[in-house]
Amino acid sequence: MIYERKVNYYETDAMKVVHHSNYIRFLEESRIYYMDKMGLPYSKMEEEGIMIPVLSVNCEYKHPASFDEILEIEVHIKEYSGVKLIMEYVITNKNTGLICLTGETKHCFTDKNMKPISLKKVKPYMHEKFLEEIKKIGEINL
Amino acid sequence: MIYERKVNYYETDAMKVVHHSNYIRFLEESRIYYMDKMGLPYSKMEEEGIMIPVLSVNCEYKHPASFDEILEIEVHIKEYSGVKLIMEYVITNKNTGLICLTGETKHCFTDKNMKPISLKKVKPYMHEKFLEEIKKIGEINL
Amino acid sequence: MIYERKVNYYETDAMKVVHHSNYIRFLEESRIYYMDKMGLPYSKMEEEGIMIPVLSVNCEYKHPASFDEILEIEVHIKEYSGVKLIMEYVITNKNTGLICLTGETKHCFTDKNMKPISLKKVKPYMHEKFLEEIKKIGEINL
Amino acid sequence: MIYERKVNYYETDAMKVVHHSNYIRFLEESRIYYMDKMGLPYSKMEEEGIMIPVLSVNCEYKHPASFDEILEIEVHIKEYSGVKLIMEYVITNKNTGLICLTGETKHCFTDKNMKPISLKKVKPYMHEKFLEEIKKIGEINL
Repeated sequence: MIYERKVNYYETDAMKVVHHSNYIRFLEESRIYYMDKMGLPYSKMEEEGIMIPVLSVNCEYKHPASFDEILEIEVHIKEYSGVKLIMEYVITNKNTGLICLTGETKHCFTDKNMKPISLKKVKPYMHEKFLEEIKKIGEINL
Repeated sequence: MIYERKVNYYETDAMKVVHHSNYIRFLEESRIYYMDKMGLPYSKMEEEGIMIPVLSVNCEYKHPASFDEILEIEVHIKEYSGVKLIMEYVITNKNTGLICLTGETKHCFTDKNMKPISLKKVKPYMHEKFLEEIKKIGEINL
Repeated sequence: MIYERKVNYYETDAMKVVHHSNYIRFLEESRIYYMDKMGLPYSKMEEEGIMIPVLSVNCEYKHPASFDEILEIEVHIKEYSGVKLIMEYVITNKNTGLICLTGETKHCFTDKNMKPISLKKVKPYMHEKFLEEIKKIGEINL
Repeated sequence: MIYERKVNYYETDAMKVVHHSNYIRFLEESRIYYMDKMGLPYSKMEEEGIMIPVLSVNCEYKHPASFDEILEIEVHIKEYSGVKLIMEYVITNKNTGLICLTGETKHCFTDKNMKPISLKKVKPYMHEKFLEEIKKIGEINL
Protein backbone atom coordinates (compact mmCIF):
# COMPACT_ATOMS: atom_id res chain seq x y z
CA MET A 1 0.00 0.00 0.00
CA ILE A 2 1.23 3.52 -0.73
CA TYR A 3 0.89 6.40 1.72
CA GLU A 4 1.92 9.82 0.51
CA ARG A 5 2.84 12.95 2.44
CA LYS A 6 4.82 16.14 2.04
CA VAL A 7 7.83 17.10 4.15
CA ASN A 8 6.94 19.91 6.55
CA TYR A 9 9.34 22.73 7.28
CA TYR A 10 9.47 21.86 10.99
CA GLU A 11 10.65 18.36 10.08
CA THR A 12 13.92 19.61 8.62
CA ASP A 13 17.07 20.28 10.64
CA ALA A 14 20.19 22.43 10.27
CA MET A 15 21.51 20.04 7.57
CA LYS A 16 18.52 21.35 5.54
CA VAL A 17 17.08 17.84 5.25
CA VAL A 18 14.54 15.81 7.23
CA HIS A 19 15.87 14.95 10.68
CA HIS A 20 16.39 11.18 10.87
CA SER A 21 14.06 10.77 13.86
CA ASN A 22 11.13 12.12 11.84
CA TYR A 23 11.14 9.22 9.40
CA ILE A 24 10.23 6.99 12.36
CA ARG A 25 7.13 9.16 12.72
CA PHE A 26 6.36 8.90 9.01
CA LEU A 27 6.49 5.11 9.36
CA GLU A 28 3.89 5.34 12.12
CA GLU A 29 1.68 7.51 9.91
CA SER A 30 1.87 4.97 7.10
CA ARG A 31 1.17 2.09 9.51
CA ILE A 32 -1.94 3.80 10.83
CA TYR A 33 -3.02 4.61 7.28
CA TYR A 34 -2.55 0.94 6.41
CA MET A 35 -4.71 -0.19 9.31
CA ASP A 36 -7.43 2.27 8.29
CA LYS A 37 -7.47 0.78 4.81
CA MET A 38 -7.50 -2.74 6.29
CA GLY A 39 -10.75 -1.80 8.02
CA LEU A 40 -9.16 -1.92 11.46
CA PRO A 41 -8.46 1.70 12.47
CA TYR A 42 -5.96 1.97 15.29
CA SER A 43 -8.22 4.48 17.08
CA LYS A 44 -10.94 1.80 17.19
CA MET A 45 -8.49 -0.78 18.52
CA GLU A 46 -7.48 1.57 21.34
CA GLU A 47 -11.16 2.20 22.13
CA GLU A 48 -11.49 -1.55 22.59
CA GLY A 49 -8.46 -1.59 24.86
CA ILE A 50 -5.87 -2.95 22.43
CA MET A 51 -2.52 -1.23 21.91
CA ILE A 52 0.25 -2.07 19.42
CA PRO A 53 3.52 -0.81 20.91
CA VAL A 54 6.76 -0.86 18.95
CA LEU A 55 9.27 -3.55 19.98
CA SER A 56 12.00 -2.63 17.54
CA VAL A 57 12.89 -0.28 14.72
CA ASN A 58 15.50 -1.05 12.08
CA CYS A 59 16.07 1.35 9.28
CA GLU A 60 18.64 2.38 6.76
CA TYR A 61 18.84 5.93 5.53
CA LYS A 62 19.64 6.09 1.81
CA HIS A 63 19.12 9.61 0.47
CA PRO A 64 17.95 12.63 2.44
CA ALA A 65 14.69 14.44 1.63
CA SER A 66 14.11 18.18 1.86
CA PHE A 67 11.30 20.55 2.70
CA ASP A 68 8.23 20.34 0.47
CA GLU A 69 9.32 17.15 -1.26
CA ILE A 70 6.71 14.42 -1.54
CA LEU A 71 7.42 11.11 0.14
CA GLU A 72 5.81 7.92 -1.06
CA ILE A 73 5.79 5.31 1.67
CA GLU A 74 5.26 1.73 0.55
CA VAL A 75 4.10 -0.19 3.60
CA HIS A 76 3.06 -3.80 4.08
CA ILE A 77 2.82 -6.61 6.61
CA LYS A 78 5.90 -8.80 6.54
CA GLU A 79 4.85 -11.20 9.28
CA TYR A 80 1.83 -11.70 11.50
CA SER A 81 1.38 -14.48 14.04
CA GLY A 82 -1.55 -13.38 16.24
CA VAL A 83 1.00 -12.34 18.85
CA LYS A 84 3.65 -10.50 16.86
CA LEU A 85 3.50 -8.20 13.86
CA ILE A 86 6.30 -7.05 11.55
CA MET A 87 5.71 -4.18 9.13
CA GLU A 88 8.06 -3.34 6.27
CA TYR A 89 8.57 0.03 4.58
CA VAL A 90 10.27 1.72 1.66
CA ILE A 91 10.19 5.50 1.51
CA THR A 92 10.79 7.02 -1.93
CA ASN A 93 11.22 10.70 -2.70
CA LYS A 94 8.77 11.43 -5.52
CA ASN A 95 10.62 14.60 -6.50
CA THR A 96 13.95 12.88 -7.06
CA GLY A 97 12.90 9.25 -7.54
CA LEU A 98 15.52 8.25 -4.98
CA ILE A 99 14.92 5.88 -2.07
CA CYS A 100 15.09 7.69 1.28
CA LEU A 101 14.74 4.81 3.65
CA THR A 102 14.11 1.11 3.95
CA GLY A 103 13.03 -0.25 7.28
CA GLU A 104 10.94 -2.48 9.43
CA THR A 105 9.17 -2.22 12.78
CA LYS A 106 8.24 -5.08 15.07
CA HIS A 107 5.19 -4.96 17.31
CA CYS A 108 3.20 -6.94 19.83
CA PHE A 109 -0.39 -6.52 21.00
CA THR A 110 -1.18 -5.48 24.56
CA ASP A 111 -4.11 -4.64 26.77
CA LYS A 112 -4.58 -1.21 28.38
CA ASN A 113 -2.01 -2.02 31.06
CA MET A 114 0.58 -2.82 28.39
CA LYS A 115 0.41 -6.55 29.17
CA PRO A 116 1.09 -8.57 25.99
CA ILE A 117 -1.88 -10.54 24.73
CA SER A 118 -2.75 -12.92 21.90
CA LEU A 119 -4.94 -10.97 19.51
CA LYS A 120 -6.19 -14.31 18.24
CA LYS A 121 -7.62 -15.17 21.66
CA VAL A 122 -8.64 -11.76 22.98
CA LYS A 123 -10.04 -10.15 19.81
CA PRO A 124 -10.73 -12.91 17.25
CA TYR A 125 -12.44 -10.49 14.84
CA MET A 126 -9.32 -8.32 14.73
CA HIS A 127 -7.22 -11.43 14.21
CA GLU A 128 -9.46 -12.32 11.25
CA LYS A 129 -8.83 -8.90 9.70
CA PHE A 130 -5.11 -9.52 9.81
CA LEU A 131 -5.52 -12.99 8.33
CA GLU A 132 -7.62 -11.63 5.45
CA GLU A 133 -5.02 -8.96 4.81
CA ILE A 134 -2.25 -11.49 4.73
CA LYS A 135 -4.17 -13.72 2.34
CA LYS A 136 -4.59 -10.74 0.03
CA ILE A 137 -0.90 -10.03 -0.10
CA GLY A 138 0.04 -13.71 -0.31
CA GLU A 139 2.44 -13.53 2.59
CA ILE A 140 1.01 -15.93 5.13
CA ASN A 141 3.34 -16.40 8.03
CA LEU A 142 1.40 -18.25 10.70
CA MET B 1 13.96 31.38 38.69
CA ILE B 2 16.48 30.39 36.00
CA TYR B 3 16.26 27.16 34.03
CA GLU B 4 19.12 26.37 31.70
CA ARG B 5 19.31 24.01 28.73
CA LYS B 6 21.28 23.49 25.55
CA VAL B 7 19.79 23.55 22.06
CA ASN B 8 19.67 20.05 20.59
CA TYR B 9 20.43 19.38 16.96
CA TYR B 10 16.95 17.97 16.31
CA GLU B 11 15.46 21.26 17.51
CA THR B 12 16.96 23.24 14.64
CA ASP B 13 15.34 23.62 11.22
CA ALA B 14 16.51 24.36 7.68
CA MET B 15 17.06 28.03 8.66
CA LYS B 16 19.85 26.59 10.88
CA VAL B 17 18.17 27.98 14.01
CA VAL B 18 15.72 26.62 16.58
CA HIS B 19 12.29 26.07 15.04
CA HIS B 20 9.85 28.52 16.62
CA SER B 21 7.52 25.76 17.87
CA ASN B 22 10.29 24.32 20.02
CA TYR B 23 10.52 27.38 22.24
CA ILE B 24 6.96 26.57 23.37
CA ARG B 25 8.37 23.25 24.56
CA PHE B 26 11.25 24.96 26.33
CA LEU B 27 8.71 27.11 28.18
CA GLU B 28 6.99 23.93 29.35
CA GLU B 29 10.32 22.52 30.55
CA SER B 30 11.02 25.67 32.55
CA ARG B 31 7.48 25.69 33.99
CA ILE B 32 7.85 22.10 35.18
CA TYR B 33 11.28 22.90 36.59
CA TYR B 34 9.74 25.84 38.42
CA MET B 35 7.04 23.66 39.98
CA ASP B 36 9.68 21.12 41.07
CA LYS B 37 11.56 23.89 42.88
CA MET B 38 8.30 25.15 44.39
CA GLY B 39 7.90 21.74 45.99
CA LEU B 40 4.88 20.89 43.85
CA PRO B 41 6.12 18.60 41.06
CA TYR B 42 3.72 18.39 38.15
CA SER B 43 4.07 14.59 38.10
CA LYS B 44 2.74 14.52 41.69
CA MET B 45 -0.15 16.80 40.76
CA GLU B 46 -1.14 14.47 37.92
CA GLU B 47 -0.92 11.51 40.28
CA GLU B 48 -3.46 13.30 42.46
CA GLY B 49 -5.68 13.88 39.45
CA ILE B 50 -4.88 17.54 38.76
CA MET B 51 -3.87 18.78 35.33
CA ILE B 52 -2.77 22.27 34.26
CA PRO B 53 -3.61 22.65 30.56
CA VAL B 54 -2.49 25.66 28.55
CA LEU B 55 -5.23 28.18 27.73
CA SER B 56 -3.10 30.58 25.73
CA VAL B 57 0.43 31.22 24.52
CA ASN B 58 1.73 34.65 23.60
CA CYS B 59 5.32 35.06 22.60
CA GLU B 60 7.61 37.33 20.71
CA TYR B 61 10.67 36.00 18.97
CA LYS B 62 13.61 38.39 19.26
CA HIS B 63 16.86 36.70 18.13
CA PRO B 64 17.22 33.14 16.90
CA ALA B 65 19.36 30.56 18.73
CA SER B 66 21.45 27.87 17.11
CA PHE B 67 22.56 24.32 17.84
CA ASP B 68 24.60 23.85 21.01
CA GLU B 69 23.93 27.33 22.35
CA ILE B 70 22.87 27.56 25.97
CA LEU B 71 19.49 29.07 26.74
CA GLU B 72 18.76 30.65 30.06
CA ILE B 73 15.04 30.73 30.74
CA GLU B 74 13.87 33.15 33.39
CA VAL B 75 10.45 31.96 34.52
CA HIS B 76 8.06 33.25 37.16
CA ILE B 77 4.42 33.41 38.17
CA LYS B 78 2.79 36.59 36.92
CA GLU B 79 -0.67 35.92 38.31
CA TYR B 80 -2.37 33.23 40.37
CA SER B 81 -5.97 33.26 41.55
CA GLY B 82 -6.69 29.69 42.68
CA VAL B 83 -8.48 29.15 39.38
CA LYS B 84 -6.15 30.70 36.82
CA LEU B 85 -2.37 30.86 36.51
CA ILE B 86 -0.22 33.07 34.30
CA MET B 87 3.49 32.32 33.89
CA GLU B 88 5.95 34.75 32.34
CA TYR B 89 9.23 33.95 30.58
CA VAL B 90 12.33 35.53 29.11
CA ILE B 91 14.72 33.30 27.17
CA THR B 92 18.27 34.60 26.82
CA ASN B 93 21.01 33.08 24.71
CA LYS B 94 24.00 32.72 27.04
CA ASN B 95 26.42 32.43 24.13
CA THR B 96 25.43 35.73 22.56
CA GLY B 97 23.80 37.56 25.48
CA LEU B 98 20.81 38.32 23.23
CA ILE B 99 17.18 37.82 24.18
CA CYS B 100 15.57 35.03 22.16
CA LEU B 101 12.00 35.25 23.34
CA THR B 102 9.66 36.94 25.76
CA GLY B 103 6.35 35.30 26.45
CA GLU B 104 3.58 34.23 28.71
CA THR B 105 1.30 31.23 29.06
CA LYS B 106 -2.11 31.16 30.73
CA HIS B 107 -3.43 28.07 32.47
CA CYS B 108 -6.35 26.71 34.42
CA PHE B 109 -6.57 23.71 36.74
CA THR B 110 -8.68 20.69 35.82
CA ASP B 111 -9.58 17.23 37.09
CA LYS B 112 -8.75 14.06 35.16
CA ASN B 113 -11.69 14.62 32.83
CA MET B 114 -10.39 18.07 31.95
CA LYS B 115 -13.20 19.78 33.87
CA PRO B 116 -11.95 23.09 35.30
CA ILE B 117 -11.73 23.20 39.08
CA SER B 118 -10.78 25.64 41.81
CA LEU B 119 -7.43 24.48 43.18
CA LYS B 120 -8.24 26.42 46.33
CA LYS B 121 -11.28 24.22 46.99
CA VAL B 122 -10.18 20.88 45.60
CA LYS B 123 -6.54 20.80 46.73
CA PRO B 124 -6.03 23.42 49.47
CA TYR B 125 -2.48 22.27 50.18
CA MET B 126 -1.49 22.87 46.54
CA HIS B 127 -3.19 26.26 46.70
CA GLU B 128 -1.09 27.06 49.78
CA LYS B 129 2.11 26.23 47.88
CA PHE B 130 1.17 28.74 45.19
CA LEU B 131 0.34 31.38 47.81
CA GLU B 132 3.70 30.87 49.53
CA GLU B 133 5.46 31.15 46.20
CA ILE B 134 3.68 34.37 45.37
CA LYS B 135 4.53 35.85 48.76
CA LYS B 136 8.17 35.05 48.13
CA ILE B 137 8.24 36.88 44.84
CA GLY B 138 6.14 39.76 46.12
CA GLU B 139 3.61 39.52 43.35
CA ILE B 140 0.38 38.74 45.12
CA ASN B 141 -2.53 38.81 42.71
CA LEU B 142 -5.50 37.37 44.58
CA MET C 1 -8.74 29.13 2.79
CA ILE C 2 -9.20 25.73 4.45
CA TYR C 3 -6.34 23.31 5.09
CA GLU C 4 -7.25 19.90 6.46
CA ARG C 5 -5.14 17.33 8.28
CA LYS C 6 -5.50 14.43 10.67
CA VAL C 7 -3.98 14.29 14.14
CA ASN C 8 -1.07 11.84 14.23
CA TYR C 9 -0.46 9.57 17.17
CA TYR C 10 2.96 11.08 17.85
CA GLU C 11 1.33 14.50 18.20
CA THR C 12 -0.61 13.48 21.32
CA ASP C 13 0.75 13.63 24.85
CA ALA C 14 0.04 11.92 28.17
CA MET C 15 -3.19 13.97 28.52
CA LYS C 16 -4.34 11.91 25.48
CA VAL C 17 -4.80 15.08 23.42
CA VAL C 18 -2.64 17.04 20.98
CA HIS C 19 0.31 18.68 22.77
CA HIS C 20 -0.18 22.44 22.65
CA SER C 21 3.17 23.04 20.89
CA ASN C 22 2.04 20.96 17.91
CA TYR C 23 -0.74 23.36 16.95
CA ILE C 24 2.00 25.92 16.25
CA ARG C 25 3.32 23.43 13.70
CA PHE C 26 -0.14 22.93 12.21
CA LEU C 27 -0.35 26.70 11.74
CA GLU C 28 2.90 26.58 9.80
CA GLU C 29 1.56 23.77 7.62
CA SER C 30 -1.56 25.77 6.83
CA ARG C 31 0.50 28.90 6.11
CA ILE C 32 2.69 27.03 3.66
CA TYR C 33 -0.40 25.47 2.06
CA TYR C 34 -1.86 28.95 1.73
CA MET C 35 1.24 30.25 -0.02
CA ASP C 36 1.20 27.29 -2.41
CA LYS C 37 -2.38 28.14 -3.36
CA MET C 38 -1.42 31.82 -3.70
CA GLY C 39 1.08 30.73 -6.36
CA LEU C 40 4.04 31.69 -4.20
CA PRO C 41 5.38 28.44 -2.69
CA TYR C 42 7.61 29.01 0.30
CA SER C 43 10.19 26.58 -1.09
CA LYS C 44 10.50 28.81 -4.18
CA MET C 45 10.88 31.90 -2.01
CA GLU C 46 13.72 30.25 -0.10
CA GLU C 47 15.35 29.27 -3.39
CA GLU C 48 15.34 32.95 -4.27
CA GLY C 49 16.88 33.81 -0.92
CA ILE C 50 13.78 35.09 0.89
CA MET C 51 12.79 33.78 4.32
CA ILE C 52 9.68 34.56 6.37
CA PRO C 53 10.60 34.06 10.03
CA VAL C 54 7.99 34.22 12.79
CA LEU C 55 8.07 37.37 14.92
CA SER C 56 5.25 36.45 17.27
CA VAL C 57 2.67 33.78 18.01
CA ASN C 58 -0.54 34.45 19.88
CA CYS C 59 -3.03 31.69 20.32
CA GLU C 60 -5.89 30.62 22.51
CA TYR C 61 -6.60 26.97 23.09
CA LYS C 62 -10.36 26.28 23.18
CA HIS C 63 -11.04 22.53 23.04
CA PRO C 64 -8.46 19.77 22.81
CA ALA C 65 -8.28 17.41 19.83
CA SER C 66 -7.40 13.72 19.97
CA PHE C 67 -5.63 11.16 17.82
CA ASP C 68 -7.16 10.55 14.40
CA GLU C 69 -9.51 13.50 14.56
CA ILE C 70 -9.61 15.75 11.52
CA LEU C 71 -8.63 19.37 11.93
CA GLU C 72 -9.88 22.02 9.60
CA ILE C 73 -7.62 25.05 9.64
CA GLU C 74 -9.10 28.26 8.30
CA VAL C 75 -6.16 30.50 7.42
CA HIS C 76 -6.01 33.96 5.88
CA ILE C 77 -3.90 37.09 5.64
CA LYS C 78 -4.95 39.66 8.23
CA GLU C 79 -2.41 42.33 7.32
CA TYR C 80 0.31 42.80 4.73
CA SER C 81 2.46 45.88 4.29
CA GLY C 82 5.35 44.77 2.07
CA VAL C 83 7.49 44.58 5.18
CA LYS C 84 5.26 42.81 7.72
CA LEU C 85 2.72 40.02 7.40
CA ILE C 86 0.06 38.88 9.86
CA MET C 87 -1.74 35.59 9.32
CA GLU C 88 -4.89 34.61 11.22
CA TYR C 89 -6.14 31.09 11.95
CA VAL C 90 -9.10 29.18 13.35
CA ILE C 91 -8.69 25.46 13.89
CA THR C 92 -11.92 23.47 14.09
CA ASN C 93 -12.23 19.81 14.99
CA LYS C 94 -14.33 18.26 12.22
CA ASN C 95 -15.21 15.26 14.37
CA THR C 96 -16.72 17.30 17.19
CA GLY C 97 -17.49 20.60 15.45
CA LEU C 98 -15.72 22.42 18.30
CA ILE C 99 -13.13 25.14 17.86
CA CYS C 100 -9.66 23.98 18.97
CA LEU C 101 -7.70 27.16 18.57
CA THR C 102 -7.81 30.72 17.38
CA GLY C 103 -4.55 32.48 16.75
CA GLU C 104 -2.32 34.72 14.73
CA THR C 105 1.31 34.81 13.72
CA LYS C 106 3.31 37.88 12.75
CA HIS C 107 6.16 37.71 10.25
CA CYS C 108 8.74 39.78 8.46
CA PHE C 109 10.69 39.08 5.29
CA THR C 110 14.46 38.57 5.38
CA ASP C 111 17.34 37.72 3.11
CA LYS C 112 19.50 34.60 3.56
CA ASN C 113 21.40 36.23 6.39
CA MET C 114 18.16 36.90 8.27
CA LYS C 115 18.41 40.65 7.60
CA PRO C 116 14.91 42.16 7.30
CA ILE C 117 14.04 43.44 3.85
CA SER C 118 11.16 45.13 2.08
CA LEU C 119 9.59 42.52 -0.17
CA LYS C 120 8.15 45.36 -2.20
CA LYS C 121 11.65 46.60 -3.07
CA VAL C 122 13.62 43.38 -3.22
CA LYS C 123 11.09 41.07 -4.90
CA PRO C 124 8.38 43.19 -6.53
CA TYR C 125 6.76 40.18 -8.22
CA MET C 126 6.30 38.48 -4.84
CA HIS C 127 4.89 41.71 -3.45
CA GLU C 128 2.40 41.75 -6.33
CA LYS C 129 1.24 38.23 -5.44
CA PHE C 130 0.48 39.37 -1.92
CA LEU C 131 -1.38 42.45 -3.20
CA GLU C 132 -3.50 40.32 -5.53
CA GLU C 133 -4.29 37.97 -2.68
CA ILE C 134 -5.33 40.81 -0.43
CA LYS C 135 -7.55 42.30 -3.13
CA LYS C 136 -9.26 38.92 -3.47
CA ILE C 137 -10.08 38.74 0.19
CA GLY C 138 -11.01 42.41 0.44
CA GLU C 139 -8.66 43.11 3.29
CA ILE C 140 -6.26 45.67 1.95
CA ASN C 141 -3.99 46.96 4.66
CA LEU C 142 -1.31 49.00 2.96
CA MET D 1 30.11 7.28 29.15
CA ILE D 2 26.84 8.13 30.88
CA TYR D 3 24.52 10.91 29.72
CA GLU D 4 21.53 11.67 31.91
CA ARG D 5 18.31 13.50 31.12
CA LYS D 6 14.72 13.72 32.31
CA VAL D 7 11.68 12.84 30.23
CA ASN D 8 9.80 15.97 29.21
CA TYR D 9 6.02 16.11 29.15
CA TYR D 10 5.94 16.85 25.42
CA GLU D 11 7.89 13.65 24.78
CA THR D 12 5.07 11.43 26.01
CA ASP D 13 2.16 10.24 23.87
CA ALA D 14 -1.41 9.05 24.47
CA MET D 15 -0.06 5.72 25.84
CA LYS D 16 1.28 7.91 28.68
CA VAL D 17 4.86 6.86 27.91
CA VAL D 18 7.70 8.29 25.79
CA HIS D 19 6.86 8.09 22.08
CA HIS D 20 9.26 5.62 20.47
CA SER D 21 10.58 8.19 17.97
CA ASN D 22 11.87 10.37 20.80
CA TYR D 23 14.41 7.81 21.97
CA ILE D 24 16.14 8.29 18.60
CA ARG D 25 16.53 11.93 19.60
CA PHE D 26 17.85 10.98 23.03
CA LEU D 27 20.49 8.85 21.30
CA GLU D 28 21.54 11.91 19.31
CA GLU D 29 21.79 13.96 22.51
CA SER D 30 24.01 11.35 24.12
CA ARG D 31 26.16 11.09 20.98
CA ILE D 32 26.73 14.83 20.93
CA TYR D 33 27.46 14.79 24.67
CA TYR D 34 29.98 12.03 24.04
CA MET D 35 31.74 14.03 21.35
CA ASP D 36 31.89 17.07 23.65
CA LYS D 37 33.61 14.96 26.31
CA MET D 38 35.96 13.52 23.66
CA GLY D 39 37.11 17.07 22.98
CA LEU D 40 35.57 17.08 19.50
CA PRO D 41 32.28 19.01 19.79
CA TYR D 42 29.96 18.37 16.87
CA SER D 43 29.29 22.10 16.54
CA LYS D 44 33.03 22.62 15.93
CA MET D 45 33.07 19.82 13.35
CA GLU D 46 30.22 21.46 11.45
CA GLU D 47 32.05 24.80 11.60
CA GLU D 48 34.95 23.07 9.87
CA GLY D 49 32.60 21.65 7.25
CA ILE D 50 32.29 18.08 8.53
CA MET D 51 28.92 16.41 9.08
CA ILE D 52 28.14 12.99 10.55
CA PRO D 53 24.81 11.86 9.08
CA VAL D 54 23.05 8.73 10.31
CA LEU D 55 23.21 5.74 7.96
CA SER D 56 21.14 3.36 10.05
CA VAL D 57 19.31 3.03 13.35
CA ASN D 58 18.62 -0.28 15.02
CA CYS D 59 16.95 -0.35 18.37
CA GLU D 60 14.94 -2.57 20.62
CA TYR D 61 12.42 -1.14 23.01
CA LYS D 62 12.41 -3.00 26.34
CA HIS D 63 10.38 -1.09 28.95
CA PRO D 64 8.60 2.22 28.44
CA ALA D 65 9.56 5.34 30.40
CA SER D 66 7.14 7.99 31.65
CA PHE D 67 7.12 11.73 32.22
CA ASP D 68 9.66 13.05 34.72
CA GLU D 69 11.59 9.79 34.94
CA ILE D 70 15.35 10.05 34.64
CA LEU D 71 17.04 8.24 31.78
CA GLU D 72 20.64 7.17 32.00
CA ILE D 73 22.11 6.67 28.55
CA GLU D 74 25.27 4.59 28.36
CA VAL D 75 26.92 5.47 25.06
CA HIS D 76 30.17 4.34 23.49
CA ILE D 77 31.96 3.83 20.19
CA LYS D 78 31.54 0.30 18.92
CA GLU D 79 33.53 0.69 15.72
CA TYR D 80 35.51 3.41 14.02
CA SER D 81 37.42 3.09 10.75
CA GLY D 82 38.18 6.66 9.66
CA VAL D 83 35.30 6.35 7.21
CA LYS D 84 32.53 4.72 9.24
CA LEU D 85 31.45 5.06 12.86
CA ILE D 86 29.16 2.83 14.91
CA MET D 87 27.85 4.01 18.27
CA GLU D 88 26.17 1.73 20.79
CA TYR D 89 23.65 2.69 23.48
CA VAL D 90 21.79 1.32 26.47
CA ILE D 91 19.09 3.50 28.01
CA THR D 92 18.18 2.67 31.60
CA ASN D 93 15.32 4.18 33.58
CA LYS D 94 16.88 5.37 36.83
CA ASN D 95 13.51 5.48 38.58
CA THR D 96 12.67 1.84 37.90
CA GLY D 97 16.11 0.34 37.20
CA LEU D 98 14.68 -1.22 34.03
CA ILE D 99 16.31 -1.07 30.61
CA CYS D 100 14.31 1.07 28.18
CA LEU D 101 16.25 0.54 25.01
CA THR D 102 19.33 -1.01 23.50
CA GLY D 103 20.48 0.23 20.14
CA GLU D 104 23.11 1.28 17.71
CA THR D 105 23.51 3.93 15.05
CA LYS D 106 25.83 3.82 12.06
CA HIS D 107 27.37 6.93 10.58
CA CYS D 108 29.69 8.19 7.89
CA PHE D 109 31.55 11.48 7.60
CA THR D 110 30.71 13.96 4.86
CA ASP D 111 31.64 17.41 3.64
CA LYS D 112 29.14 20.29 3.51
CA ASN D 113 27.60 18.92 0.32
CA MET D 114 26.95 15.59 2.02
CA LYS D 115 29.66 13.85 -0.04
CA PRO D 116 31.23 11.05 2.02
CA ILE D 117 34.86 11.64 2.97
CA SER D 118 37.64 9.88 4.84
CA LEU D 119 38.06 11.72 8.14
CA LYS D 120 41.55 10.26 8.29
CA LYS D 121 42.54 12.06 5.09
CA VAL D 122 40.50 15.24 5.30
CA LYS D 123 40.79 16.03 9.01
CA PRO D 124 43.71 14.04 10.49
CA TYR D 125 43.45 15.80 13.86
CA MET D 126 39.81 14.71 14.22
CA HIS D 127 40.81 11.20 13.21
CA GLU D 128 43.46 11.25 15.98
CA LYS D 129 40.81 12.20 18.54
CA PHE D 130 38.77 9.15 17.56
CA LEU D 131 41.84 6.92 17.73
CA GLU D 132 42.71 8.19 21.22
CA GLU D 133 39.15 7.59 22.34
CA ILE D 134 39.18 4.06 21.02
CA LYS D 135 42.49 3.32 22.73
CA LYS D 136 40.98 4.51 25.99
CA ILE D 137 38.04 2.18 25.77
CA GLY D 138 40.11 -0.71 24.47
CA GLU D 139 37.96 -1.28 21.46
CA ILE D 140 40.29 -0.69 18.54
CA ASN D 141 38.61 -1.57 15.27
CA LEU D 142 40.88 -0.27 12.56
